[in-house]
Amino acid sequence: MTTNGFGANCLAGVRVLDMTQFEAGPSCTETLAWLGVEVVKVENPKGGDPGRAFGMKSGNDDPYFLNFNANKKSITVNLKDPRGLQLVKDLAVKADVMIENFAPGAIERLGLGAEVIRALNPSIIYCQVKGFGEGSPYEKNLAFDMIAQACGGVMSTTGEPDGRPLKPGPSLGDTGTGMLLSISILGALYRRKGTGQGDHLQIAMQDAMMHYLRIGFSHQARTGTPAPRVGDGGASGTNPPMGIFPTKGDGPNDYVYVFTSRANPEHWRRLLGVIGREDLIGDARYDSPAARAERPAEVNDMVAAWTRRHTKHEAMEIIGAAGVPAGAVLDTMELTNDPTFEQRGIMQTIDHPTLGPFKMVGWPVRFSGRPPPVKPAPLLGANNNDVLTDWLGLGTDQLGGLRADNIIG
Amino acid sequence: MTTNGFGANCLAGVRVLDMTQFEAGPSCTETLAWLGVEVVKVENPKGGDPGRAFGMKSGNDDPYFLNFNANKKSITVNLKDPRGLQLVKDLAVKADVMIENFAPGAIERLGLGAEVIRALNPSIIYCQVKGFGEGSPYEKNLAFDMIAQACGGVMSTTGEPDGRPLKPGPSLGDTGTGMLLSISILGALYRRKGTGQGDHLQIAMQDAMMHYLRIGFSHQARTGTPAPRVGDGGASGTNPPMGIFPTKGDGPNDYVYVFTSRANPEHWRRLLGVIGREDLIGDARYDSPAARAERPAEVNDMVAAWTRRHTKHEAMEIIGAAGVPAGAVLDTMELTNDPTFEQRGIMQTIDHPTLGPFKMVGWPVRFSGRPPPVKPAPLLGANNNDVLTDWLGLGTDQLGGLRADNIIG
Repeated sequence: MTTNGFGANCLAGVRVLDMTQFEAGPSCTETLAWLGVEVVKVENPKGGDPGRAFGMKSGNDDPYFLNFNANKKSITVNLKDPRGLQLVKDLAVKADVMIENFAPGAIERLGLGAEVIRALNPSIIYCQVKGFGEGSPYEKNLAFDMIAQACGGVMSTTGEPDGRPLKPGPSLGDTGTGMLLSISILGALYRRKGTGQGDHLQIAMQDAMMHYLRIGFSHQARTGTPAPRVGDGGASGTNPPMGIFPTKGDGPNDYVYVFTSRANPEHWRRLLGVIGREDLIGDARYDSPAARAERPAEVNDMVAAWTRRHTKHEAMEIIGAAGVPAGAVLDTMELTNDPTFEQRGIMQTIDHPTLGPFKMVGWPVRFSGRPPPVKPAPLLGANNNDVLTDWLGLGTDQLGGLRADNIIG
Repeated sequence: MTTNGFGANCLAGVRVLDMTQFEAGPSCTETLAWLGVEVVKVENPKGGDPGRAFGMKSGNDDPYFLNFNANKKSITVNLKDPRGLQLVKDLAVKADVMIENFAPGAIERLGLGAEVIRALNPSIIYCQVKGFGEGSPYEKNLAFDMIAQACGGVMSTTGEPDGRPLKPGPSLGDTGTGMLLSISILGALYRRKGTGQGDHLQIAMQDAMMHYLRIGFSHQARTGTPAPRVGDGGASGTNPPMGIFPTKGDGPNDYVYVFTSRANPEHWRRLLGVIGREDLIGDARYDSPAARAERPAEVNDMVAAWTRRHTKHEAMEIIGAAGVPAGAVLDTMELTNDPTFEQRGIMQTIDHPTLGPFKMVGWPVRFSGRPPPVKPAPLLGANNNDVLTDWLGLGTDQLGGLRADNIIG
């Protein structure tokens, strides 16, 4: 049984049988592991989750795998052998949740579909992630993160207003979907704790994208036109000054985001103080959002003339301290090297058994002051013995037999 | 008590006192409402949640508010009056969860901070959303969605490789943060159901962004360089053909995304069949991802020559049916007008008491075949009587007195 030993250890004793790979599924089950669930990954003995080799030519587990599989256990089961399939069924009988994100139809062809498993364990919460929803014209199609972002509206709203559609940097199609399923699993677990009731949860990545794009759907409902690409502006209109402004330096991210809210006229007045243009406070040409919207270039240039004389960090500090929302455009290296994230437990350094120290982003929510501790992603098959003994009561002889017959890795 | 009456009604009887506004907080509590929680929004009698007027000049509730406040209740309480503050404390004693996302320090200045409320109700789960984390150098700074996306690394990875940083279309800084808090609340509720234990949960929008950007952090760990802007490619490298390809039509979203996985050599071979270039199947100049990476323009042009002759819908259908991941770049209007989303319950049409029918995106997870039903966002103060009677046992006279004294709206 996993025990975090800290505030976040909310679901100790809950068991998840995790047949997912890459990211949409693993990002979901990782959140459960961070909350104290015992998550057991069932992997192919030959290489395991393909995410282990993501982006690498060969060898050790990729950082991608480490990031999405912290705090989990791993067992290796040969699903091409009927005894391997039976082993999964035996584990499913002992599990509270089972989850899979194979290609459409694959889990059913293995004989491990929802009907089969729910007949064996009526109180299980059986969960599936697919690219397109059951009943969609594309329900049999393959999908990856970028396909979901294309078909779910995200790309249509990302990019320069006069440019082509782009993919956002974050893997919203995968991790964004995983988060919505996690919420639903936790809801079903809460009910199950009271009633013992099982369920069948299904999410499609395309559908999940629309959840994150509701600011775009709101724009459309308000204006009657599809949500446009926003560039660096807001999905509900841009009121100058607002957007990214160039700062000192010539790096690709030497910019600061400055936002003056329509709802708070003080933002603009405070900003004038920062940039040394107190003379314009109260000037009717600039004082209202509507007035500034008539001369966006002039207003933005005024702010840029100041930001160009400061680094992005200085600009963020000075503008932010004046009570105006401002943020430096930070890259992954700058975030990694900022010690305050590790001090606060938002990043944590794990000691991986073969790769050594690895600094990674953990779960960002603090429970009574601290985020859950991060433990390294498991080596392939690391928990064959302990899980099969603990869940199924198998003894040394039985484990040896399964291993000799290549049923477990 | 809210009862959905369907599969998703997991948390009936749980009470959330919701002091949030705009989106990061409301998107979180809305997920709880969809799962059957009774979510009571505490609003300013003068206009309420400013999200009600988001993007509008005046008048009725904006679509933005409808999207983020479905299935909730609303009460109006004057927090400038000590009796109003006392009313909130009385409600907090009856609540399972309390949540706020005011500017830093504001809730404490109101006398409704974590220490005060947890002393009154030790088993409450008290939750806070801020822009920057406690202990961050910027913990007192204001933040909005785009500030979090700038400071959390998202913008640095979004945009054309040779262009400036951009903001993704989705409001990841807000809704993305809300989802992570929802997961944590549900974990804490699960534990509380067994132990009665309360907690204090805190999330910062900047920190939450790093969770969604772990594909970028993985790239950095692998290469030693910050995650770059990805354009339309993948965060872990782009292998041609991969990306958006122009299709027939001259609309801003007449593109189809095509992906050929390095892990599955059949994708490329199948695609050659689709585009009528079976002659190249097995040709060493193109057969491996490494070979194609040596001539990306040539490979991409070959695919584009075919996609230009088809609409994006045709292209998606033909390429997808051939077993190659493909997705049309769809905009919000195309998604809204596609009847299959409503047939599957992913979009639902509510009947708003003053605005009439409104078609909106609901919760995309199906519980035993159907997503939770969507109910309209409440009118301002719609539930003053029923909530104050149900939670606090106030009678008609007491309600009349509070109303006469302008304590409730």
